[in-house]
Amino acid sequence: MAQPNYPDDKRLAVEKALKEFFPSRKNYPELIYKAMRHSLFSGGKRFRPVLMLTTAEVFEKKPIDVMPAACAIECVHTYSLIHDDLPAIDDDEVRRGNPTCHILFGEDMAILAGDALFSEAFYMIAKYQTSDKPKNIIRVIEELSDASGPRGMVGGQVLDILSTGKKVDLNTLTYIHSHKTGELIRASCRIGAILAGASEDELNVISNYAENLGLAFQVTDDILDVIGHVALLGKEPGGDERKDKATFPNLFGLDNSKKIAKEAIDNAKNVLDNINRDTKSLVNLADFVCERNK
Amino acid sequence: MAQPNYPDDKRLAVEKALKEFFPSRKNYPELIYKAMRHSLFSGGKRFRPVLMLTTAEVFEKKPIDVMPAACAIECVHTYSLIHDDLPAIDDDEVRRGNPTCHILFGEDMAILAGDALFSEAFYMIAKYQTSDKPKNIIRVIEELSDASGPRGMVGGQVLDILSTGKKVDLNTLTYIHSHKTGELIRASCRIGAILAGASEDELNVISNYAENLGLAFQVTDDILDVIGHVALLGKEPGGDERKDKATFPNLFGLDNSKKIAKEAIDNAKNVLDNINRDTKSLVNLADFVCERNK
Repeated sequence: MAQPNYPDDKRLAVEKALKEFFPSRKNYPELIYKAMRHSLFSGGKRFRPVLMLTTAEVFEKKPIDVMPAACAIECVHTYSLIHDDLPAIDDDEVRRGNPTCHILFGEDMAILAGDALFSEAFYMIAKYQTSDKPKNIIRVIEELSDASGPRGMVGGQVLDILSTGKKVDLNTLTYIHSHKTGELIRASCRIGAILAGASEDELNVISNYAENLGLAFQVTDDILDVIGHVALLGKEPGGDERKDKATFPNLFGLDNSKKIAKEAIDNAKNVLDNINRDTKSLVNLADFVCERNK
Repeated sequence: MAQPNYPDDKRLAVEKALKEFFPSRKNYPELIYKAMRHSLFSGGKRFRPVLMLTTAEVFEKKPIDVMPAACAIECVHTYSLIHDDLPAIDDDEVRRGNPTCHILFGEDMAILAGDALFSEAFYMIAKYQTSDKPKNIIRVIEELSDASGPRGMVGGQVLDILSTGKKVDLNTLTYIHSHKTGELIRASCRIGAILAGASEDELNVISNYAENLGLAFQVTDDILDVIGHVALLGKEPGGDERKDKATFPNLFGLDNSKKIAKEAIDNAKNVLDNINRDTKSLVNLADFVCERNK
């Protein structure tokens, strides 16, 4: 299936900005930067920063003007992948076709590379993000820390671990997905909107869009783990089942999972009608999420 | 040896504020909060927050007014201890007389409890720290993230790991100590001064004080690991030697290490003469660092 147009211009702009922030020159001690760069530059879609840039643009802020926050959210995402992959958690040896951070650099360096990326995320925003309202930058940091902590991403990861190998109900599965993946996707949209000066009403609409998008994103991930191709996924499909993970296909079967993803995307697109702006680019990203094959 | 007066009023105020932020009510998922609380409420001296409160007071800011930032720095310190104790890093089973986080809650939860405390640190500042200058709050976040990341604490930890079992020179040992321990102590003083509106000149003096204090603090730690009592330390002394860690007593012997600590404390106290404020409380803390027995 052809991929809908992904905004590659934005992806490349994020790539460039991340490379400027993490150049390959020799920082000291060098090893930790190598470990950080290994995971940060491994061919990700940069979905979260692209989403932030796109949302900011809808509210008439130039994408480049939210770049520090956009790079920060990619650092948070990457740190979470490094820690998730650790032997004590998911014990994954391959990601995006490459050895995971701890396979190449050892568990100790992988733990610290995750920690380092997490601290750099906040540093990037505090040091480089500009706004005519400094309070908006503080709010962005509040959003990002809340979304990534125990009430957000970490909370979802905890419940995912506790649920592995158990029969889970829809409430639990929804909690896991909406926190482990959803919160950071929601924060990407909200931060883009906040920095662009969106109204609270617009922010609510964008949050609703993002929650539906996040659900569709994770259900699609679950589906791809069942039917995906190794060459596109960069890893063997079937990992969730081998690990006895709670997933939508496990709970509802493949066909119903596809319906759930489709419905969430329709909801995401429909809710955008409540904003009096040109939201085509966000509709396009929603289509991408549903139709992506990796 | 008697301990100089430690400002227990400030320590207790920090304790109370941390308990308000992390109450024992049931957050969901509960396990991660239990793990966080286990490590956070294990009888620490609260040295870094007390130092921040004391510095703020020197510059005429009420200690209570910097409490969110003070609690945040204790969260960062605690997260770093949890990750340091992990089997892949220092593999410590006991800290402050209690089982370490991963011993009680498993490695997966310990990794995530550290991550969660780190994110909560930034959340606390962004959500609760007030200032008549919002830009100062952003600067505080910059200081804290810089001090805890790869150019700060994580960098020191990386070099500590890379140096274990090797013959290190004074430069390397100083780098390890000034980054692994020193940067957060420096940030504690700087953040207290920044929030209190200290001038850039005063900030430089305070940084100089803190750098000397941090050096003395770590050298004293090294010394206590050789000569300390298990009942006071809450762990068996001799851990550094068993792990073949780079320490000042290893490099210079005990007597010279004591001289180095004493000199650093004298420097810390002398530099305070360059501030036209009542700095008795900071002098007192410097004496505590040098004479503490745990």
